[in-house]
Amino acid sequence: MKCRKCTISAVINLRQHRLALCREHFNEWFLGHCASTIRKYGMISPGDRMLIAVSGGKDSLGLWDVLTRLGYQVEGLTIQLGIDEGGQYSAKSLECTHKFAKDRGLILHELNIQQEYGESVPQMLQHARAGEDKPCSVCGLVKRHELNRYTMANGFNVLVTGHNLDDEAAVLFTNSLIWNTSQLGRQLPVMEDRGEFAKRIKPFVRFYERETTAYALLNHIDYIEEECPFSTGSRTNHYKTILNGMEDEHPGLKYRYYLSFIENKKAGLLNFAEDRQYVEYLCDQCGQPTNQPGLCAFCRLVGRKI
Amino acid sequence: MKCRKCTISAVINLRQHRLALCREHFNEWFLGHCASTIRKYGMISPGDRMLIAVSGGKDSLGLWDVLTRLGYQVEGLTIQLGIDEGGQYSAKSLECTHKFAKDRGLILHELNIQQEYGESVPQMLQHARAGEDKPCSVCGLVKRHELNRYTMANGFNVLVTGHNLDDEAAVLFTNSLIWNTSQLGRQLPVMEDRGEFAKRIKPFVRFYERETTAYALLNHIDYIEEECPFSTGSRTNHYKTILNGMEDEHPGLKYRYYLSFIENKKAGLLNFAEDRQYVEYLCDQCGQPTNQPGLCAFCRLVGRKI
Repeated sequence: MKCRKCTISAVINLRQHRLALCREHFNEWFLGHCASTIRKYGMISPGDRMLIAVSGGKDSLGLWDVLTRLGYQVEGLTIQLGIDEGGQYSAKSLECTHKFAKDRGLILHELNIQQEYGESVPQMLQHARAGEDKPCSVCGLVKRHELNRYTMANGFNVLVTGHNLDDEAAVLFTNSLIWNTSQLGRQLPVMEDRGEFAKRIKPFVRFYERETTAYALLNHIDYIEEECPFSTGSRTNHYKTILNGMEDEHPGLKYRYYLSFIENKKAGLLNFAEDRQYVEYLCDQCGQPTNQPGLCAFCRLVGRKI
Repeated sequence: MKCRKCTISAVINLRQHRLALCREHFNEWFLGHCASTIRKYGMISPGDRMLIAVSGGKDSLGLWDVLTRLGYQVEGLTIQLGIDEGGQYSAKSLECTHKFAKDRGLILHELNIQQEYGESVPQMLQHARAGEDKPCSVCGLVKRHELNRYTMANGFNVLVTGHNLDDEAAVLFTNSLIWNTSQLGRQLPVMEDRGEFAKRIKPFVRFYERETTAYALLNHIDYIEEECPFSTGSRTNHYKTILNGMEDEHPGLKYRYYLSFIENKKAGLLNFAEDRQYVEYLCDQCGQPTNQPGLCAFCRLVGRKI
């Protein structure tokens, strides 16, 4: 198959866009599409001080690379969760991230959960409350809290994450299966600054995972390929598999699914109310917003040491 | 496994309700659950004149049986669509329906599309416009139009249909995959009378298909077991299969999926707007409501004879 834009052999066929491209034109398309997403959703304003959450995976490193190529100055933050079962996941993740930042002369911040709170995430899991999707929900809680805290405490005003279309579609699918209106109401490619919550942006939401993987591979980005050992059998991965099956039968299904959700919300055709009065308290301990008086869920978790 | 309410062997295990029941207690539960659905959604008022759409399948015949046992007087309407490929589907359907009504002394109305409009549904399909799910969408258009027309023209004020939870969940799933806000806004167990549209109720929406099948079998209702030959490979059947796979892994998933949608809509937490200004015109030919001036979709279809 030839590249649609020149005579060279294509390296990728973007089925949902009916577009086969060579390496050079794929990169051109990828950067342009990301820039268009940033413009379309008003993600970045002049003077923004951006911090990107980097895990060492293809999405976060690829996004850091793209933003840098697009001329943005973005500093990185890597959170060491202490997940070292089954092959030193956290250590490898740190190694890829370090190498990436060093090679490009980018500023990388580091935050070690065990040093900060006396416990790694796997240790916290031992005394977390039972939940359907325990490891991922506890880890998500820790990451959301710490990313927001670090962003606010260090003079950044925009937190950037590498969530792609497959991630967002799976979360949307999970929340729509129980019509979780609070979560559905908050799922957007941009979450505006809400006082103690920094603005959050997801510039990769219009890319399929196979596209972000292709970008990382074609641009020789060394990333950690292993999945987190705790994510095996997670609900999100389960629904990703179901959505992938539907995508195989109807190319473009996930793109239409997620984009029509966002577009209809923007147009006011789709409205979700909070399922309870959203009273925003500030945590007595860390000062971050929480939906109940006293301690926030994170401070309750780290205070629950046995 | 024993029946939860007596010592007899159970004939069915309702996994999502964690309830194993014998024939007698299943029937008692089934009638009670249907009566509760009717009350919960305000489906029937004293003095209502009800017409049930009967296809000869387990759902419509089972529902007619249940409503009669609950003391309601309901007349039936069977529409002969003329689908006689692959085993005389329409003829068999008529035979089951006739026998059911005759055995119980119930009033059955008949409407023959070919006699009424000079063409059967398969003939109409020949010159219908191409659509993703052509046979089912054309047939659905014909049935919706004719059921409403017959209901209004013959002094009935409530149209009853046998849609079950599997049907409704599959439609909800299909519409949510493209966030069709107009359709999502209208999907309810009760659609109130809107002038030229009769009130429509679906008293079986809280029953799984396996429960309505069990009811028909345990009560010796002779129903047509074949699926419509045109429905093979339809989009709705495809999504039913996907939902069944998810239900197998998470018993009760479909029930929570559909019921949480309905409950959140009722509570005002979930709001869908029409995707265009909903100007209601009346069809120049049949007088039924339509969303464009001139002829409604049904009259355009039947006028398109080659």
